[in-house]
Formats: sequence, C-alpha cells, structure tokens
Amino acid sequence: MSIRLRQSMEDAYPSRMSARPLIIPRRDPVVYSDWNPTSPIGKEQSDFYEQNGYLFLEGFFDAEELNEYREEARSLQTASRTVESDEIIREPESEEVRSVFAIHESNPVFQRLSRHPRLLAIIEYILGSLTYIHQSRINYKPGFTGKEFYWHSDFETWHVEDGMPRMRALSCSIALTDNYPYNGPLMVVPGSHKQFVSCIGETPEDHFKDSLRKQRFGVPDHDSLTALVKQGGIDTPVGKAGSVVLFDCNIMHGSNSNITPMPRSNIFIVYNSVCNKIGEPYSGQRPRPEYIATRAGL
Amino acid sequence: MSIRLRQSMEDAYPSRMSARPLIIPRRDPVVYSDWNPTSPIGKEQSDFYEQNGYLFLEGFFDAEELNEYREEARSLQTASRTVESDEIIREPESEEVRSVFAIHESNPVFQRLSRHPRLLAIIEYILGSLTYIHQSRINYKPGFTGKEFYWHSDFETWHVEDGMPRMRALSCSIALTDNYPYNGPLMVVPGSHKQFVSCIGETPEDHFKDSLRKQRFGVPDHDSLTALVKQGGIDTPVGKAGSVVLFDCNIMHGSNSNITPMPRSNIFIVYNSVCNKIGEPYSGQRPRPEYIATRAGL
Repeated sequence: MSIRLRQSMEDAYPSRMSARPLIIPRRDPVVYSDWNPTSPIGKEQSDFYEQNGYLFLEGFFDAEELNEYREEARSLQTASRTVESDEIIREPESEEVRSVFAIHESNPVFQRLSRHPRLLAIIEYILGSLTYIHQSRINYKPGFTGKEFYWHSDFETWHVEDGMPRMRALSCSIALTDNYPYNGPLMVVPGSHKQFVSCIGETPEDHFKDSLRKQRFGVPDHDSLTALVKQGGIDTPVGKAGSVVLFDCNIMHGSNSNITPMPRSNIFIVYNSVCNKIGEPYSGQRPRPEYIATRAGL
Repeated sequence: MSIRLRQSMEDAYPSRMSARPLIIPRRDPVVYSDWNPTSPIGKEQSDFYEQNGYLFLEGFFDAEELNEYREEARSLQTASRTVESDEIIREPESEEVRSVFAIHESNPVFQRLSRHPRLLAIIEYILGSLTYIHQSRINYKPGFTGKEFYWHSDFETWHVEDGMPRMRALSCSIALTDNYPYNGPLMVVPGSHKQFVSCIGETPEDHFKDSLRKQRFGVPDHDSLTALVKQGGIDTPVGKAGSVVLFDCNIMHGSNSNITPMPRSNIFIVYNSVCNKIGEPYSGQRPRPEYIATRAGL
C-alpha cells in the first residue's frame, strides 16, 4: 500500500481508506453539454438523466440490428464454453459463462455496435466531448441459476482500482433479451449518482480476479444504501430486447438473482471522456489488466 | 429405502423414484365446493383460483390487526436471534433468522390469526371441508442478503416426505411488509397446479435439515419448468402489507434473492383438509418432525 503514491495525486473521491463509510457530494457535472434543439435527445430526456442518473431508450435498435447482435452473442457464448481465457468469466456456482470482456476489440460485430452513430451522438452529448471505451462485455445471466450482482457504484471501482480521476463516464446496457421485473433486471437508485459512497476497508492485491465473480471490497455499507433508497427509491428500467439503458458511472445499481427460465443477456459498454483518461490506481496498487480497463495508447 | 412400504400405499403422484422427470396430470379437484351466492368469495375469484391456482386478496387485514401481527413478528425475530432451536432456521450465508416454524402452536397471537373466521371461511370453501394446520412459519427475508427459494411444488415434498395423499391443501401467505416486484416476491406459474412434475433422484435420510436452508432434492428439472412457464407465464402477486395470497399446494412457485434494503416478511400457514390427513411418507423414510408436519392427534 503506497501512501506516497496516493498523496501525489489529488483524490476528489477517496474510498477504501477509512474504517468508517462516508457520503461525499458529487464534485462533477452530470450532463456536460447545454441542451439545445439540435441535441440528440429531447430536453425532458436530458433533464431526466441529470436528475435521475439514467435514461431508458425503449426499442432503440431495430429488428435487423438486434438479430445480428443476438446471433453473434449466441455464437460467442457457444464458443466461450470450451475456451479458457481471462476474458471469459463463469458463474460462481456453475461453469456457465457469465461474461465475456473486451468484445469491442475482439469481435467485429460488437466493435461496429460500439461505434453506432446514433448511440455515440447521445453519449458525446452527455459527456460533452469525444469518448473512448474503458470497458466492454457481454453479460449472459443464464436462466435458473443467474446470481445477483450486489449494489455498487462502478465509478468507485474505476476510481480506486483503475485510476479514473473524475465522474465523466457512463455505461450503456443493450438488452439482447426481453427483460421482466422478475428475471433479475438492472435496479438503479435514482439520484444516487449525486452522492459518492466512500467504502470501508482496503483493496486486496489482484482483487479483480475474485470481484468479477462476486464483489467483496468496494461494497457500500447498509446504512448508506438505506439512506440512498429512502431518498430515491428503486427503478427497474425493463423492456423488450433492443432497448438501451444509459447510466451514469456513479449511480448505485445492482440486480437480484434469476431463477426464471428466461435468460437475461445484455451488452455493456463503458464510455469515458477523452478528458478523463485513467492514470495510476488510487489504491496505489498495480493496474487491472487491459481487457478490464483500457490503458494502451491513452 | 423400503419398496414394500411404497407398494402397500396407492401412490397417485409418484416422485423421486425414476431417473427421468415426468409430468402427471392432476387427479384431484382444485376448488372442492360449488360456488353459490352465499360463498365467501365471488364467482370470479373462485374461477380465478380454479384456473390459475392462486388468489390475491389486497388489504385483507385492517391496520389494527396488521400492527398487532407486525409487532409480534418483530418480538419473535429479536427473541429468536439468541435462541438455538429446531424451529428456528437461519440464512445460508449469514446467521440472520430466515424462518420460525410452528408459530400457530407456540404463539398465542399467531394461533388466533390462524383461526381468523373470515380467512377460514374462504379456505374451507376452497377445500370443501374442515381443515387443520399442516405447517406454519414466519419467513423473514432480510434486506441485502435474502437468498432465493428455488422453484418447487409444496405438494411434491409434502407427498414424498410427509405422506400427504392427495392435492387438497393450500398455503396462505400474509404479507407483514409491503412487497415490491424487486424485493424477492413470491413468483407463481399460473396453471401449473394442474400438472404434477415428478422429480428425479431419491431422497436422502433427514433431507429436511438441509432443504429448509437450500433445497437439493424434489427440485423440478429445467425442461419441465420451461414448459410450464411457456404455458402459463409468471405472476408476482405483490401489494401492501396486510395483503393475503392463497395458493394451491401444487402450484409451481419460488422467489429470487433480495439485495434491496426492504425486508420481506410473511406469515405462511398451510391448511390441509381433514379428509386428507397425512400417513407414512411415500419415500418409505421416517417422517419429518412435528414442527414441520403436524402428525400428533390426527
């Protein structure tokens, strides 16, 4: 644990450094552009994102695009079953494929998807600059045995473990299957993106190997979560396959398990502003691998 | 494993005897009374129960009754934390209290609740006879760490492990907390009560000790579940505290995990017809204890 390293960087959002949790007000904008009639989303949508920290776009992709992504996802899942690779993460209690990382680099179809012009225009509007991809993955949440993802702010991890300085990134989740309230959908706490929950405890070395299966550090405490939910409630933006959810890097989110027969597959792409490139991890530890946090060529 | 015992009893619903799952059509009525204008539920409600296998009664208990039950439940939870007893079941991954059994015997408030005249009239109407309580419990599904209950038909277990001969029982679930689609509510497969999914594998001796924490036998197979859900879909009857769900002993049901801060506490009471008293377990094994399956004085 390098105290020296920490002190040499200005840390706007300290976390995992104290024995007590702390809620720090957000020190960054949410929507980085001023809305005008030529903006790629309506004023109401822009305001909704600013206030709630997420935006649901029902039926964003048409049937033809969707079919291509679904077929590609299926092929990738089948291929991944018999391959051992760092990019492939399996379920904690079975050997079923849970996630495949860095699909915007390894797969031409998903690379094209990640540069979809209509999508990119919205993302660049929100982040107010050009962007690059910090991380991408497919999540296959299988039916019957899909486990929960506990509550977390992505930014907390990207800040501490990847060295992302400020809150100027967002996630884009593209539904490849119909989502229902009962098959373990994404749950978000509206408004929670305006507060940073500083987590307790220190990060073990190579935490990522474990955390992609089940997170144990960088986990918010019960009291902070209860306070955030009391303020904002819980939303579950669910809809048909082809829908998109954009959500701020600091919104508190998670999902319950999925015992239903309906799998829940999504593509996640994290866009970061080119003005917010990552540096040394604020934990003082060695950076996570390239397939989890893009660093090369920055 | 006593083959002799099994053969001496007529078994209308064999299960855990074969290496292959099998779906057997129900051989018993669902609603045992003919509806008439003096019946304690409306004709539409009676028909709904017959077709779907469950009935949701929003706001069945008034605020005063509800408050009494909630306070009693809280006292019981606090008291149970420091007591070691067979009737008290804990969460698989924490020591939090998950369930307390036989509350209709040990607790005067819940004994009175179990005999609530307006409730009992509906139950006796559906089962077409006097009833007795086969099992009762409080489930405390704590916030943050509440684990899932996998899909099951209660009747499958009561038949194989308790010797309940036919489908003439129902469960009554009384919500002590507001239920939401996202805090691990009861999920039912409408219409599944008309088909019996015969499960594979044999039952280990003293299976109940393990199954109340996490069930591993008497679990329906993926193909049968997929077929049932394809036919009937999934309903999540949720509502305010004080609501009641009545559901048939053979309806396929389960619940996802609950990572939200909202706990989900329910009282479960299982009523069985006096014409359907339990005998020797169809597994040929020794009966489960009295606090799980009432046998004394039958």
